[in-house]
Amino acid sequence: MKIYIAGPEVFLENAIEVLGAKKRLCAQYGHEGVSPFDTDIENVTNDLDCGLRIAAANEGLIEECDAVIANISPYRGHNADPGTIYEIGYARGRRKLIFAYTYDKMTHSNRICTNFYKGNVEDFKDFKRGRLDKQFIDDFGMAENAMIDGGVTASGGDVVVEESFNLADTKGFEACLHLLVESLLCDRLR
Amino acid sequence: MKIYIAGPEVFLENAIEVLGAKKRLCAQYGHEGVSPFDTDIENVTNDLDCGLRIAAANEGLIEECDAVIANISPYRGHNADPGTIYEIGYARGRRKLIFAYTYDKMTHSNRICTNFYKGNVEDFKDFKRGRLDKQFIDDFGMAENAMIDGGVTASGGDVVVEESFNLADTKGFEACLHLLVESLLCDRLR
Repeated sequence: MKIYIAGPEVFLENAIEVLGAKKRLCAQYGHEGVSPFDTDIENVTNDLDCGLRIAAANEGLIEECDAVIANISPYRGHNADPGTIYEIGYARGRRKLIFAYTYDKMTHSNRICTNFYKGNVEDFKDFKRGRLDKQFIDDFGMAENAMIDGGVTASGGDVVVEESFNLADTKGFEACLHLLVESLLCDRLR
Repeated sequence: MKIYIAGPEVFLENAIEVLGAKKRLCAQYGHEGVSPFDTDIENVTNDLDCGLRIAAANEGLIEECDAVIANISPYRGHNADPGTIYEIGYARGRRKLIFAYTYDKMTHSNRICTNFYKGNVEDFKDFKRGRLDKQFIDDFGMAENAMIDGGVTASGGDVVVEESFNLADTKGFEACLHLLVESLLCDRLR
């Protein structure tokens, strides 16, 4: 199986090294890891052209893959990296198998209530909402917004919660790989 | 054409009213607006079940639509609402036509450099990166992460930048509707 490696690790100084470690893990489990860098963008005319071509190339890589394993840990804010979220949505649209992991043990709801609203929230019917802006907060006990956890689950995959302060930690990725291999075995036994 | 109305307006106290205004705009332009609330979620067993069923229902609504118009204004942080980003990715995966608008005139790169890093960034080769964490920052002059602007553009749509301090403002939505109608006319004339 070809597995696309999604996550904000691409922005790290040692991105190549981190993605290399994940590729080796895929190989150990009998699969092939595909990195967002596994593409050549040449003869770029300007910044916009470069961005558009990277986006198209990554969609092409996901298309070639059977599954996606995504790091949805909060990145530069209270939510997962926007590029990673897009890729999960795209992969779900292409009917790929998706697993995701986060290194934040807080639920999406608790993160927004605590880190964004600083606890200044109130109960309203079955929901929580900001006390000042009256805006509702997803409260489904999920790691991310319901579309993300929902899409991953509907694809046949799962969301794994681990604890780590290091975005480049491979343990969440490996936990997903393990589940992926198990789910393939179960499919074969059925 | 059926147009799915994506954006964080669903979290507003007056969400129904705001989505109603956008549906009326769609009708004025000869199309049908579909809101994320246009579905019945009944007999929910628990919070998780509720979230999963909302996610599945929204995917179903996008499937029924021909196009998506999405509000990608920053929401509770430096990036667009995660549910909206997922829906853009999903719609692109399903080969729908997508338009997006933002009420923030800053590019994604400037927003991250200024609002997240507070200017504490440095140049490195063709990129900018955080001075302390050495993490790279997308710098393509786009409104959002390259996957989002790239996906919208590849779908045949466009990203519209307007200025407003009101998330519920309909002008960005209407600007996208206008472009959508124009693009359909051009297709017909071809």
